[in-house]
Amino acid sequence: MLHLYEYAPSGNCYKIRLLLTQLGILFQRTHLDILNKETRTPEFLAKNPNGRTPLLELEPGKFLAESNAILFYLSAETQFFPVDPWERAQVMQWLFFEQYSHEPYIATLRFWISYLHKAEEFAIEIAKRKEQGYAALRVMEQHLSSRDYFVGEKYTIADISLFAYTHVAAEGDFDLSEFTHILRWIDRVKAQPNYISITD
Amino acid sequence: MLHLYEYAPSGNCYKIRLLLTQLGILFQRTHLDILNKETRTPEFLAKNPNGRTPLLELEPGKFLAESNAILFYLSAETQFFPVDPWERAQVMQWLFFEQYSHEPYIATLRFWISYLHKAEEFAIEIAKRKEQGYAALRVMEQHLSSRDYFVGEKYTIADISLFAYTHVAAEGDFDLSEFTHILRWIDRVKAQPNYISITD
Repeated sequence: MLHLYEYAPSGNCYKIRLLLTQLGILFQRTHLDILNKETRTPEFLAKNPNGRTPLLELEPGKFLAESNAILFYLSAETQFFPVDPWERAQVMQWLFFEQYSHEPYIATLRFWISYLHKAEEFAIEIAKRKEQGYAALRVMEQHLSSRDYFVGEKYTIADISLFAYTHVAAEGDFDLSEFTHILRWIDRVKAQPNYISITD
Repeated sequence: MLHLYEYAPSGNCYKIRLLLTQLGILFQRTHLDILNKETRTPEFLAKNPNGRTPLLELEPGKFLAESNAILFYLSAETQFFPVDPWERAQVMQWLFFEQYSHEPYIATLRFWISYLHKAEEFAIEIAKRKEQGYAALRVMEQHLSSRDYFVGEKYTIADISLFAYTHVAAEGDFDLSEFTHILRWIDRVKAQPNYISITD
């Protein structure tokens, strides 16, 4: 059985649980407390030298890291990854956008504010990253103003990847109330068959 | 003809030039001076709402952003992207590692120090990011200690992506002299057919 090593509240880990559930694939979960540095132990570093979750063990000793690479691997040959090469390229574009222009701002603020409870200590850095996070949200809002899903008018791993931290952005003190296209897209994702919430 | 919008010294843009050259594909280049905010003009934002280079125009009005998504698109069905699903997954893992754990540290320090010339002004932030950059280099060094290329013992887009900023890391004040496996890998990449340098 697939084995997911995860920090459960992480959106990056939730991405994998959501896709696996929507694919109907059973998996085991091991929770690692990153606040206790459980991803930096010699035992875990032997599994993932980069010391991060999620990490998927496909069979004993065979590991895949990086949330969006795991989405790519699991969705191959399924409805969640397009067949058309140009649509595939656009999915990848959004996955890299998510990890480079979105997650470092929107996920990081959520972690600092709602999990580390260091909003005051990190106030200057939070203000800088909030600006970048809103820039990413504006790019998404513009894109969704003329379509229902990110690529090819179908729900794909691009939506799963971007949904993971966007729908809990309020926990990082982002106000989505004026991002009406994003809010409607969030509702569309939540209405997908076999949807599970980030706290499931 | 393919049209590459680029900030020429960027490693992210160099990745695309290197792969296109090794594929024997002709392309046009338009240089945008990011120091002059030429990627934030209304004209460029109409092409890429995220306001970044590289941007590849495949045909008039058809644009693809994100360097590693462009590598993925161009390498499909070529020797630079594996056929095996597990090797494909590993290539993607390294591409996301590059954008999340490597580029924000190694590329950013190079830009601040050698292009913005702000080593003193950004000294505190540089010290923090240098630690993270060395952590990424240690992950690469360990991986290369038992293999010649990142995935499947073949030169792939994983090598192109990681090579782009690693081989010029000294411009970000990183000392590679003790990373002997990385140095030998750099030599192997430079020896590939149709290799071009970042200043070509």
